[in-house]
Amino acid sequence: MDHGLSLDPLERVRVVLSHASHPGNIGGAARAMKTMGLSRLWLVSPRHFPSDEAIARASGAEDVLVHACVTDSLAKALDGCVLVAAVTARRRELSTPTRWARDAAAELVAASRQGEVALVFGNETSGLSNDEVALCHMPVMIPANPAYSSLNLASAVQILAYELRQAAAAPGAPPPVAGEGQPAPHEDVERLVAHFERASIGSGFLDPASPKRLIPRLRRLFARARIEREEVAILRGILSALEQPQRKPD
Amino acid sequence: MDHGLSLDPLERVRVVLSHASHPGNIGGAARAMKTMGLSRLWLVSPRHFPSDEAIARASGAEDVLVHACVTDSLAKALDGCVLVAAVTARRRELSTPTRWARDAAAELVAASRQGEVALVFGNETSGLSNDEVALCHMPVMIPANPAYSSLNLASAVQILAYELRQAAAAPGAPPPVAGEGQPAPHEDVERLVAHFERASIGSGFLDPASPKRLIPRLRRLFARARIEREEVAILRGILSALEQPQRKPD
Repeated sequence: MDHGLSLDPLERVRVVLSHASHPGNIGGAARAMKTMGLSRLWLVSPRHFPSDEAIARASGAEDVLVHACVTDSLAKALDGCVLVAAVTARRRELSTPTRWARDAAAELVAASRQGEVALVFGNETSGLSNDEVALCHMPVMIPANPAYSSLNLASAVQILAYELRQAAAAPGAPPPVAGEGQPAPHEDVERLVAHFERASIGSGFLDPASPKRLIPRLRRLFARARIEREEVAILRGILSALEQPQRKPD
Repeated sequence: MDHGLSLDPLERVRVVLSHASHPGNIGGAARAMKTMGLSRLWLVSPRHFPSDEAIARASGAEDVLVHACVTDSLAKALDGCVLVAAVTARRRELSTPTRWARDAAAELVAASRQGEVALVFGNETSGLSNDEVALCHMPVMIPANPAYSSLNLASAVQILAYELRQAAAAPGAPPPVAGEGQPAPHEDVERLVAHFERASIGSGFLDPASPKRLIPRLRRLFARARIEREEVAILRGILSALEQPQRKPD
């Protein structure tokens, strides 16, 4: 699906709800988004959708529900995104530093000049799985009461949508540097990771029966670097050349 | 009722809901308050209270409902407050300038050093009456989509509670994560770059007579990522394995 790039940064932000349990929260999230000028809702394997309860809670934001994209894979919902933030209620064992909501919003708005961006929210009870977080570039936390940090899903969407609106209205980050490359879209990075995995197994470096943390570590490295299109092409070119039978010296 | 003056500015903030219609919103507001460390809820003439629906929506914040003060007059709910903000969805013909949520939160936190302060929210449909707004010191608006500014009551409480928490304590940078890796020293990165260069030439991918910008691009990628020791080891391991003669399938 190609939406082209809207002039309004808020229209380049996808809100992705993964495995939402309660239709009321989906409706509440749609309303929260619309109040802040967001419109692009993605639902990954929602328990009930469409639903009358979602429509009721959406109030005047039924259009956001009508245009929502439903899919069964988070990777599909992130297809084409240049920056993806995972909203998480707790610190995770990841080397990527956690951003606070306000800082993450500024980064997302800045990145939206180069392509679509996404904010990913997990299930109401269990949050995002580690595999889901691993598909994102950065974890984001909403500052909250340490004794009770259990924000309602629609409330969490509301705060981040509000911060995005604030960030979009602010004078913003300095324009990108001239030499700066094009960030690689999500699916290119996944293909690169898959290529490394094939090459590691094919060369005998990685035993698929005992994969250790090798592939997640590479994915994390590329996410942290915000790897660019051209860099993906270089690395894949080297891997492909190495996978050919060795050349004899002429 | 005299609470004395708490040391925590957030405990000197009253959230006053005037004529709330929906018990679910009262519960949602209690939950929103508690996630941000607020606890003092006042209800002026609620349509239904107490209510099971409010308790259900409050989730783990039932204590805020249990301790809520119910009254039939806004003036009583504001008794003893040194600064009172009226949350309003539209501009009003008032001589007091309207504040944005963020600025109002900072003013309320500053004023809380001198006494209790309050944030007043009106009925879901009709908002605050002019008489109610006249009892407050300043009108406050949440920046919103001009085409659809209809925030849910609990969502409006959530945003202002969040801004109060931000104003009360700039959270600072999140502490570093335990699992964070050791950055690779300069010389390890250089050896990695040299290894990529050898492998690129050996495999025929890179013509040393016309090297282009390939190697500088990789060096830039690793610098930008602040690549770690373990990641260098993984990449060099894969390269070494690929450089061996191809394995035959067993």
